[in-house]
Amino acid sequence: MDNKYIGILTSGGDASGMNAAIRAVTRAAIFNGFKVKGIYRGYEGLIAGEVKELTTEDVSSIIQRGGTILKTARSETFTTPEGRKKAYKVIQKENINALIIIGGDGSLTGARIFAEEYDVTCIGLPGTIDNDLYGTDFTIGYDTALNTIVECVDKIRDTATSHDRIFFVEVMGRDAGFLAQNSAIASGAEAAIIPEDRTDVDQLETFIGRGFRKTKNSSIVIVTESPENKNGGAIYYADRVKKEYPGYDVRVSILGHLQRGGTPSANDRILASRLGEAAIQALMEDQRNVMIGIRNNEIVYVPFVQAIKKDKTIDKSLIRVLNELSI
Amino acid sequence: MDNKYIGILTSGGDASGMNAAIRAVTRAAIFNGFKVKGIYRGYEGLIAGEVKELTTEDVSSIIQRGGTILKTARSETFTTPEGRKKAYKVIQKENINALIIIGGDGSLTGARIFAEEYDVTCIGLPGTIDNDLYGTDFTIGYDTALNTIVECVDKIRDTATSHDRIFFVEVMGRDAGFLAQNSAIASGAEAAIIPEDRTDVDQLETFIGRGFRKTKNSSIVIVTESPENKNGGAIYYADRVKKEYPGYDVRVSILGHLQRGGTPSANDRILASRLGEAAIQALMEDQRNVMIGIRNNEIVYVPFVQAIKKDKTIDKSLIRVLNELSI
Amino acid sequence: MDNKYIGILTSGGDASGMNAAIRAVTRAAIFNGFKVKGIYRGYEGLIAGEVKELTTEDVSSIIQRGGTILKTARSETFTTPEGRKKAYKVIQKENINALIIIGGDGSLTGARIFAEEYDVTCIGLPGTIDNDLYGTDFTIGYDTALNTIVECVDKIRDTATSHDRIFFVEVMGRDAGFLAQNSAIASGAEAAIIPEDRTDVDQLETFIGRGFRKTKNSSIVIVTESPENKNGGAIYYADRVKKEYPGYDVRVSILGHLQRGGTPSANDRILASRLGEAAIQALMEDQRNVMIGIRNNEIVYVPFVQAIKKDKTIDKSLIRVLNELSI
Amino acid sequence: MDNKYIGILTSGGDASGMNAAIRAVTRAAIFNGFKVKGIYRGYEGLIAGEVKELTTEDVSSIIQRGGTILKTARSETFTTPEGRKKAYKVIQKENINALIIIGGDGSLTGARIFAEEYDVTCIGLPGTIDNDLYGTDFTIGYDTALNTIVECVDKIRDTATSHDRIFFVEVMGRDAGFLAQNSAIASGAEAAIIPEDRTDVDQLETFIGRGFRKTKNSSIVIVTESPENKNGGAIYYADRVKKEYPGYDVRVSILGHLQRGGTPSANDRILASRLGEAAIQALMEDQRNVMIGIRNNEIVYVPFVQAIKKDKTIDKSLIRVLNELSI
Repeated sequence: MDNKYIGILTSGGDASGMNAAIRAVTRAAIFNGFKVKGIYRGYEGLIAGEVKELTTEDVSSIIQRGGTILKTARSETFTTPEGRKKAYKVIQKENINALIIIGGDGSLTGARIFAEEYDVTCIGLPGTIDNDLYGTDFTIGYDTALNTIVECVDKIRDTATSHDRIFFVEVMGRDAGFLAQNSAIASGAEAAIIPEDRTDVDQLETFIGRGFRKTKNSSIVIVTESPENKNGGAIYYADRVKKEYPGYDVRVSILGHLQRGGTPSANDRILASRLGEAAIQALMEDQRNVMIGIRNNEIVYVPFVQAIKKDKTIDKSLIRVLNELSI
Repeated sequence: MDNKYIGILTSGGDASGMNAAIRAVTRAAIFNGFKVKGIYRGYEGLIAGEVKELTTEDVSSIIQRGGTILKTARSETFTTPEGRKKAYKVIQKENINALIIIGGDGSLTGARIFAEEYDVTCIGLPGTIDNDLYGTDFTIGYDTALNTIVECVDKIRDTATSHDRIFFVEVMGRDAGFLAQNSAIASGAEAAIIPEDRTDVDQLETFIGRGFRKTKNSSIVIVTESPENKNGGAIYYADRVKKEYPGYDVRVSILGHLQRGGTPSANDRILASRLGEAAIQALMEDQRNVMIGIRNNEIVYVPFVQAIKKDKTIDKSLIRVLNELSI
Repeated sequence: MDNKYIGILTSGGDASGMNAAIRAVTRAAIFNGFKVKGIYRGYEGLIAGEVKELTTEDVSSIIQRGGTILKTARSETFTTPEGRKKAYKVIQKENINALIIIGGDGSLTGARIFAEEYDVTCIGLPGTIDNDLYGTDFTIGYDTALNTIVECVDKIRDTATSHDRIFFVEVMGRDAGFLAQNSAIASGAEAAIIPEDRTDVDQLETFIGRGFRKTKNSSIVIVTESPENKNGGAIYYADRVKKEYPGYDVRVSILGHLQRGGTPSANDRILASRLGEAAIQALMEDQRNVMIGIRNNEIVYVPFVQAIKKDKTIDKSLIRVLNELSI
Repeated sequence: MDNKYIGILTSGGDASGMNAAIRAVTRAAIFNGFKVKGIYRGYEGLIAGEVKELTTEDVSSIIQRGGTILKTARSETFTTPEGRKKAYKVIQKENINALIIIGGDGSLTGARIFAEEYDVTCIGLPGTIDNDLYGTDFTIGYDTALNTIVECVDKIRDTATSHDRIFFVEVMGRDAGFLAQNSAIASGAEAAIIPEDRTDVDQLETFIGRGFRKTKNSSIVIVTESPENKNGGAIYYADRVKKEYPGYDVRVSILGHLQRGGTPSANDRILASRLGEAAIQALMEDQRNVMIGIRNNEIVYVPFVQAIKKDKTIDKSLIRVLNELSI
């Protein structure tokens, strides 16, 4: 593999810990005798040829930084055959022998198609705050986002309690309720509204009314965002409660983009380090077109097709735990 | 003052450090031979007679907590003569000899009117995250809110840089730009849009375009909220930029209520402790109808009428500093 | 179980998340029709009869607080038959039907002996920052301590880099290297010295010298505390390096007790909530003398005898990851 | 000033906010038509000629980082005439027209002597966590260190309360008690032992005993470090209390180097930005051999001789506040 390179890129929404993964891939590669090229701005930059060699020092002091030093983007062009053709030419020109992609659902789908069309070894790392990739217990960025949400709700709780208010707090997650369900348990919220188990507003009332009227002075409900407004986000639920229960002092807080960034948690750094190092191990074992995941604290290889097709379900016992503890 | 009590209440929007002030008032009062009654839910609770004696232990381990253990409210009733009459009856019934009010503009206005109508000694403490009270360099809660905003913008910056985006981040402050101007300097933002110096969108473009097109890959603009939508908040500016400069990837983040709560900063705890202790000193010096403030690091007594009437201005040199450092 | 109570106590060193566990046990118990008595200061307080009923409200707003509202202690008296006899009398007098113990190694050993001698149903919850209990992947308090250590090392790294220094940072863990090994990976440290794999100083030099002389300007080595000074803590290694490599600017930082406290991480709150709720489920399934653990993200029941006797080993792949990534 | 440069260096112990000051100096200089050279490792690097031009981009995204990108050192050589002669030669060779020094006491003393011997314009910025420079209300790094200490003591308080212990917590400050006195107020500690007001152990007992025996279950005493062991640090006081009051469970925590680093607080970033910008204003006003300080929230120029000679005193009212509030 003398003058062959491993290419690395980050793609899709940024997630905290991506830098730790870039560092791990780069250093494990160099440790094991490879050379590394960083590709900027995801597939967009791959197509445009934005490529630069990465050394051990280039990834110094980035383990603790949010975002991604390689930048990221969502690429329309890469979804077209012409786009992928251009990308392949850059791969050839830059002597890139294997491509490591850190990203979510859409990014790994792109990798799967690319690997099918062209004979390029692709390895995926699960990088998304939504934790919605099948085959891995955790994705890079999820634990940090979860902690950020909980810190925010702790602050909102201070205000809610001081004023006897109900807050609907909207968190990210797209079609997955991991962030909402788990942050609700961790922050002592009264309820979580998640895509997997859409609570209608009457059931919601059961939760809130129970706590609010008897012993509690404030309530917090965590709501998963609803990008296509299928079921409604925090504003939708707040409006319904306001209309049906005019006595309540109802507020909305949409946490938004601050959930993505920030110094990664210890767990996200360790996860990213382990997965990044394992990606190089996988290459040395001639693996291809797999996502590196972690299951039961062990490294696993998950074929792309599984990681992106199958639905990851929420542990139903978590719903019971939240229900019992919010009395 | 044998069986006379000092009453204490928090009023208006909650601010981090109010608990530290409650602790300081209570302990300094008891240290100096007084007894203390806590009044719940601001003037609302005063009118309703929600009063309970506070001991030294009642205020243990609250210095580090956001919100207010006495709860707070905005009271319509207290703006009426009937409301204040009821309040005065509770004052008499509870043997309250002096009233300490922690709150902002509106709360001190209420205190001023109440003290005029009835012979009640009132002492105010400036408690608001907006820092908009005249006669004091800082208000309780401002430093914590400033740090919270800066931590949020640090996270948003990670995302902005990773995606080459412009973010309009909306912060609290009502008619005052202290939070926006200072958080912009502290977070390395490209511009601040404040009520005191409404930048029109063309001037805004100067800032953004300068940095964005030349050397910078992302921009952050901090915008003061615009409650009555006089000049427009973050969404307004984002929409104008989107329309006039369609090439930019523009996002909005409204920080909202999480700016109020959270563990108070060291400075807010010290400020609240000093002001609370000084309120008792002021009572022992027979002061009345003054707000306790801090100027040039010294305790000052500011007549209510000054604290609420006069406008506090933003140091113009801060605008120059931000302008020079955002190149 | 009409007028029977579930007793709950925390024992041994405090760990962040104990309050979340107390809340979960109390609320899940009440939700399922039980009543709860809190026992103060661990086995000491049990012997002394320091017992008080806990209601749903008593455990409000404690999920986010470090330490334990029930206080904790190490009890010499409970290791004697006389001590346990007194404890049993209190159990009888207070109508306590089952005892839930949150603590580490020593606390569960006490529970095992007590349950053998007297016919008392005991359920254990793993509460220790050291993560050294067999049969559970994680213990309550471990994730928070890990994050605290990583935040501290991030700060120390700033100083180390600014001055080109080597820091030996000593962390807790007693006979277990989980905190040291994982915080070393997460903080990008150059090496970890752990009880399970005592690195002699020559091997240590390999790590440090490699990084320090070639490309790095500073080094950080994480060292597990050495309570009985068997192998030496941070000071021991720093002294040896100072003597053998006088050119290095070597410093020591002993993190100490701040590793125990603080607001629990999201993970510790979720873990404590799940384990606490599961303890009540276990009681309803007539389980006894087991520790509630979590393995592969599922609740498990671990007989006391296993939890305390067997050694939990560190995943060897973590040593390889640290080694490869610290080049 | 066409091909003349402004040189900038950081010297002495690192302080959080130094990077914000480097950014401010660099950008304000370039904004106003100057060019900037960064000097590495303080006076040591100046003597060795470790100099590199700084551009606007070089100081991007450093405002939020602890430590100093220019690195720092304490220089023995610069205290000798030969050392300073070499330094001057580098100044000439590099076309440096004015030198901006960010550092504490010793660093400004060096600047004063250097400016006397050679005709070099020197401007100082107060950069030290100790806050012990006369003529400025605050130094860069002080507010961050204060907040770090308070966060640590909040964690230690959790443990102290859970176990009913007395903690002696040692903080930095050298000969100045600002950090100890103010962190004691902010963290609700029972007492502070500061160089300016050495409490003997009997007086200490008054504080502790009062709180400990009556209503409090734990006590925290903040002690200023005692580098030359003149009066004794935390260990000294802990030992005396252990000997004289054997019933107390006494512990020591030495916070150490983690007090220096970390993300700077909002205040330190604003202070550093304002002082850095003001340094360039001062140069344009032909100032020389002054430290830029802040007094009563206004920029001031303090002759070196004053900044380093005079003693800055602690506000005595703070001692009263702590005393009254720790009952």
